[in-house]
Amino acid sequence: MHTQGRPTLEDVARRAAVSRQTVSNVLNAPHVVRSETAARVQAAIAELGYRPSAAGRALRTRRSRVLGLRMEPQHDGINGAVSDRFLHGLTEGAQERGYRVMLFTAPDDAAEIGQYDDLLDTADIDAFVLTATHHGDPRTGWLARRGVPFVTFGRPWDPPDGSAPADHPWVDVDGAAGTRAAVEHLLALGHRRIGWVGWPEGSDTGADRRRGWAEALAAAGVPQAALAELTAGVDDGIATGRAAATELLARPDGAPTAFVCASDSLAIGVAAALGDESRGAVVGFDDTPVAAALGLSSVAQPLQEAAGRTLDLLLHRLDGGHPPVPDPHVLLTPRLVVRATSGPTT
Amino acid sequence: MHTQGRPTLEDVARRAAVSRQTVSNVLNAPHVVRSETAARVQAAIAELGYRPSAAGRALRTRRSRVLGLRMEPQHDGINGAVSDRFLHGLTEGAQERGYRVMLFTAPDDAAEIGQYDDLLDTADIDAFVLTATHHGDPRTGWLARRGVPFVTFGRPWDPPDGSAPADHPWVDVDGAAGTRAAVEHLLALGHRRIGWVGWPEGSDTGADRRRGWAEALAAAGVPQAALAELTAGVDDGIATGRAAATELLARPDGAPTAFVCASDSLAIGVAAALGDESRGAVVGFDDTPVAAALGLSSVAQPLQEAAGRTLDLLLHRLDGGHPPVPDPHVLLTPRLVVRATSGPTT
Repeated sequence: MHTQGRPTLEDVARRAAVSRQTVSNVLNAPHVVRSETAARVQAAIAELGYRPSAAGRALRTRRSRVLGLRMEPQHDGINGAVSDRFLHGLTEGAQERGYRVMLFTAPDDAAEIGQYDDLLDTADIDAFVLTATHHGDPRTGWLARRGVPFVTFGRPWDPPDGSAPADHPWVDVDGAAGTRAAVEHLLALGHRRIGWVGWPEGSDTGADRRRGWAEALAAAGVPQAALAELTAGVDDGIATGRAAATELLARPDGAPTAFVCASDSLAIGVAAALGDESRGAVVGFDDTPVAAALGLSSVAQPLQEAAGRTLDLLLHRLDGGHPPVPDPHVLLTPRLVVRATSGPTT
Repeated sequence: MHTQGRPTLEDVARRAAVSRQTVSNVLNAPHVVRSETAARVQAAIAELGYRPSAAGRALRTRRSRVLGLRMEPQHDGINGAVSDRFLHGLTEGAQERGYRVMLFTAPDDAAEIGQYDDLLDTADIDAFVLTATHHGDPRTGWLARRGVPFVTFGRPWDPPDGSAPADHPWVDVDGAAGTRAAVEHLLALGHRRIGWVGWPEGSDTGADRRRGWAEALAAAGVPQAALAELTAGVDDGIATGRAAATELLARPDGAPTAFVCASDSLAIGVAAALGDESRGAVVGFDDTPVAAALGLSSVAQPLQEAAGRTLDLLLHRLDGGHPPVPDPHVLLTPRLVVRATSGPTT
């Protein structure tokens, strides 16, 4: 007996004269199948050379207890510390719960989807953890259509066309709350003109962080019209941050006396522009090791907790378990770490 | 038929009335086995509930194309950047060659060996990459005895009892060459009293790095007796580095005018002790992102190349391939990165 192309679960079931469910049970829950039946199914599998397909795997209940994660590229090594910390937290937390993390790399979404396909086909992967979500993200839909479990670290962002964002389990950090806290801290120190050095438009994360800055200033009575002239949007980096701050500081109509930044890289550049003369205060974002070493105030993401909550959602989906069902949308609040660059003496 | 305890390959062979080799072939090279025979063996495997053991897996020839790597803990996040860079290089290089990296964590050697055992038993792992080798390392012997392929990033260090070090494939970076280059650079700047701020005795890596410093000073005519009073051995960290330099700088009989350090953390502390007054020069080790951001001169390990050479050795072992056989012992030379803390104006 030979069917066209790759043998299917159906073919195995027909060959062994059992139901599809029984074949699935032999593969996924062999203890529930009588040994003679299991032997007949195993024989059919061997004779047909049957290999569970990616689509079939999505339906299976057997667990490899392996989670797939794309490793983010390192860039300048400053902000990369964030994704590496999440990776550490995820690996440690997964292992405590009997899971492993398998890594892969991909330069873009299409390549990442290609890797999912390859991993589902050739490796045993139960689920994926996605990072760096963005609007128009094609990855979540691809996985959802195949029934592959996943959780994103990063919320689904509103599509620009106004349609509803994707609905799937996610964990994220409330960037706006972090920059709001930074502004409130600087206001309490007596600063009134507080600049924003962030990224160019198009970054959802960047827009979220800028929103917290804008809302806190608005709440303090700064007119919306004044915000634009306090804002710089530049590519991430120390040099670009320095240049942006230098330009804002040179404005004749009232230079900022303090800055909140979308990243520590930008904040290090801003601190250099402010110089050693305590010309102003600056708060970065992500509390990287570089910020700690330099005495840079910064907003710290709770990455250990984010990794743990991501695992909570994923393992609830994979292993079921009893109520209470965890809230599938988790927004964590970051913490402001005050250091020398925004000390009260400024 | 029931045997005591876990069923063995032998049990399966007896049940299916075939040789042990045939059972092994069904598991590892099913295409060489006639389908009726394969079906009989599969049936025996299913009936007995046979699971290939770790020892059995070591003998198999089937490849999962998965490499296991222990993720090192992050500590202060400064030096952790080194192992994370190696991890990135290894993951990217492995993927280019059709392999994946699976992560695990372990607090010590015994726990790491426990993880090997568990992974060989429950996951498909072809080989391991070991980091952080040290004298008396029990991990390499454990893997070697089981025939599990591995390569270490880190050379096998001479046992303190004088016996020969373990002989296995390894890749390492020549730390002594790095600190020699740092000393020669400082000598060329006119420094004569060059201090060493390193770790306490017992660290093989630390002793190797100190050796390069001592050899370069000896070559420049500094008497061996003078080296001891130029040396501090402290736990890694910014605060300990600062305290050690402060103490060395306070010596009445000629304080150092420059320092070479075993890590960037220590060097950042030394730089703080030297202050902003350009009282002396300092060179760190590992060229971390913090060093780049602070303008700290440092010795850079070629981690991308180290990951690539590690894969060369491992994949030659796994996939065979044609001559030339790669040299199984690879010692790479690091590169001195000169920045502001050892500029020529000091």
